[in-house]
Amino acid sequence: MKVHNIMEVVVRDVISKYQNELHLPCTCEHCLNDVLAMTLNNVKPQYVVDEANSAYIRAVHEADRQGATAVLTKVAWAAGVVGQNPRCDNMKNPSE
Amino acid sequence: MKVHNIMEVVVRDVISKYQNELHLPCTCEHCLNDVLAMTLNNVKPQYVVDEANSAYIRAVHEADRQGATAVLTKVAWAAGVVGQNPRCDNMKNPSE
Repeated sequence: MKVHNIMEVVVRDVISKYQNELHLPCTCEHCLNDVLAMTLNNVKPQYVVDEANSAYIRAVHEADRQGATAVLTKVAWAAGVVGQNPRCDNMKNPSE
Repeated sequence: MKVHNIMEVVVRDVISKYQNELHLPCTCEHCLNDVLAMTLNNVKPQYVVDEANSAYIRAVHEADRQGATAVLTKVAWAAGVVGQNPRCDNMKNPSE
């Protein structure tokens, strides 16, 4: 059984696009994954069986300005939390 | 960037375990995927970065009886909807 949460793609794209504007103290893979996971836990999942139909879901969260802003707001919030509480090794030992 | 929704594993396990009790008219891959996707769209996502920590999330939805019942309720509801509206080719042309 294999299904896809289209919000994973949508949120990943938003993080990549606005990475510089999010002012993360660390942009390593681990920190970006933390932002991605926190955001996805706070947006409604949009699972589909067939990825070919994903365009209908993506449109609501990308082409529609209100939908896109809603996702960006969640991403910015998650980036704030992760920025203040980084879990990666770079930030744990900043003096090294 | 790669993250994992632990609920995917939890719901997939529940569907496999209770497949006979769900009384689905068709148990093909497509219909089971439909049940999985519908259920996942109606339970809170539980994304983690590191799958090694998934045990803490799984315990709430598997070991805890109330959590396990909540997931099973959602699966049973989704199975009812999919059973009444099958989308797979087997059910579209039952006479063939």
